[in-house]
Amino acid sequence: MMSDFPSWVSTHQSRFEDVLKRLLPQADVTPQRLHAAMRYSVLDGGKRVRPLLAYAAGELSGAPIERVGIAAAAVELIHAYSLVHDDMPCMDDDVLRRGKPTCHVEYDEATALLVGDALQSLAFQLLSEHPLSGDAAKQLQMVKLLAVASGSRGMAGGQAIDLASVGKQLTLPELEQMHIHKTGALIRAAILLGAHCGDLEQSQLDKLDRYGKCIGLAFQVVDDVLDSEADTATLGKTAGKDADNDKPTYVTLLGVQSAKKMAAELQQEAMDNLVEFGDRAQRLRELADFIVMRKY
Amino acid sequence: MMSDFPSWVSTHQSRFEDVLKRLLPQADVTPQRLHAAMRYSVLDGGKRVRPLLAYAAGELSGAPIERVGIAAAAVELIHAYSLVHDDMPCMDDDVLRRGKPTCHVEYDEATALLVGDALQSLAFQLLSEHPLSGDAAKQLQMVKLLAVASGSRGMAGGQAIDLASVGKQLTLPELEQMHIHKTGALIRAAILLGAHCGDLEQSQLDKLDRYGKCIGLAFQVVDDVLDSEADTATLGKTAGKDADNDKPTYVTLLGVQSAKKMAAELQQEAMDNLVEFGDRAQRLRELADFIVMRKY
Repeated sequence: MMSDFPSWVSTHQSRFEDVLKRLLPQADVTPQRLHAAMRYSVLDGGKRVRPLLAYAAGELSGAPIERVGIAAAAVELIHAYSLVHDDMPCMDDDVLRRGKPTCHVEYDEATALLVGDALQSLAFQLLSEHPLSGDAAKQLQMVKLLAVASGSRGMAGGQAIDLASVGKQLTLPELEQMHIHKTGALIRAAILLGAHCGDLEQSQLDKLDRYGKCIGLAFQVVDDVLDSEADTATLGKTAGKDADNDKPTYVTLLGVQSAKKMAAELQQEAMDNLVEFGDRAQRLRELADFIVMRKY
Repeated sequence: MMSDFPSWVSTHQSRFEDVLKRLLPQADVTPQRLHAAMRYSVLDGGKRVRPLLAYAAGELSGAPIERVGIAAAAVELIHAYSLVHDDMPCMDDDVLRRGKPTCHVEYDEATALLVGDALQSLAFQLLSEHPLSGDAAKQLQMVKLLAVASGSRGMAGGQAIDLASVGKQLTLPELEQMHIHKTGALIRAAILLGAHCGDLEQSQLDKLDRYGKCIGLAFQVVDDVLDSEADTATLGKTAGKDADNDKPTYVTLLGVQSAKKMAAELQQEAMDNLVEFGDRAQRLRELADFIVMRKY
């Protein structure tokens, strides 16, 4: 019998925290301050949505959970580095993240810059030094997948589109393009890397990828709704920031009600892509619900 | 008969420029500004010391030159990203690099941050998407090698040690530790990645690695000497900057004469590690001379 979803989430969040603690350089290893700042920026924070998606996709594909943990850590380190750099004064200039001072506030800007750089290197180190597949050629493809999802045609590119959009009126397709890159690419990578640790047909991977594309967008739409409604304490980061910065959001473009409707439609489309997997996709269904229903 | 060294250098510099132009995203691909800034920061600049070392090690190991070009590009992209981030106001705050405005001056700080991030991703994409070895497991090791050389125990770690050293009196071993990480790690990676595209025994790779360690340090010692003697126009970057910033250098620690003697000794030790390769190591010998004798 399957455990209930909240237990599954907390078990895997806790397991993942242990994985990260083990894989990140210890704070007493030189250069200590950099390593301490890396741990500060990654540990004890966030809902771990990407790792949970990787674990769920790994379960579906019959992957050994230790391997999925490594792949999930690589994705999460990329996500964490992007937050550290995003929060810097030359980007979003944010002082609060996950209820704690941001890295450049707690340490300093130069350290935050290096923390981000070193976290990215570590992500690729993890994907290349641990055996994640019996087939080394397939594992090289996993490295490529994460590199593309992180780079100028993926997450970093989405951030560049975001920068260029400040103060501009975007159309809905333009906003979608931005988020497909900025947050969607890494969410899809998390799902595919988790699945690659096991064994699936290409057509099944394609289904999972479409699921990922839908929940990636839904995630962002819900983020915009929460940002427009929640207060700073609940959110653990500065609320209302995007609208204040004159950045286009789904809410400013569609209004709250239509944005909520869009999230629900994306959730349904995500579910449609899981039909053939039956019960094996139960966690992915629950995660889609979780992403759309969350309150923070 | 071998071509003379200056012809070999210019042939390979020019070949490498073509490789980079082809591998970097074109400036008309979205996001255009980011891609233009990436090309601005990488193309048409520098002596390409690391790529030349990779080509020379590749020749020694009988590697196909196209493969070496990819590996060299990956290393050079890491080097280029580190310069872009290093020049930013929160680090060295430099406005001139290779005779041109630095990336954050020509574009803006946020773009420079993303340029560095995306160049790092691209480096790992290159190493994982092109066939560099008939053995995928060996190629995964190449990815790991570059990741370690770039990260908190390599180049980024060296920069963190550098940050922590401003205004402090370092001992010679401490200064050496900093440079072994900050510049040495990537120089050694360039040589080993070039060699890995061909075929060498482990004992031979170890010799090349020791050669790389020596010329990596020699490179830095000569840099400090040039920085203390040259003017800004010759150097193509702001001269005397390190001493002005109260950063320890080999010259401030040893004086110019002893620093020059140290460079010559490191050069000799580098050469000693090439003996068994005979004529096949001719280019690596010439590069060691070039690194120590250069005037800019």
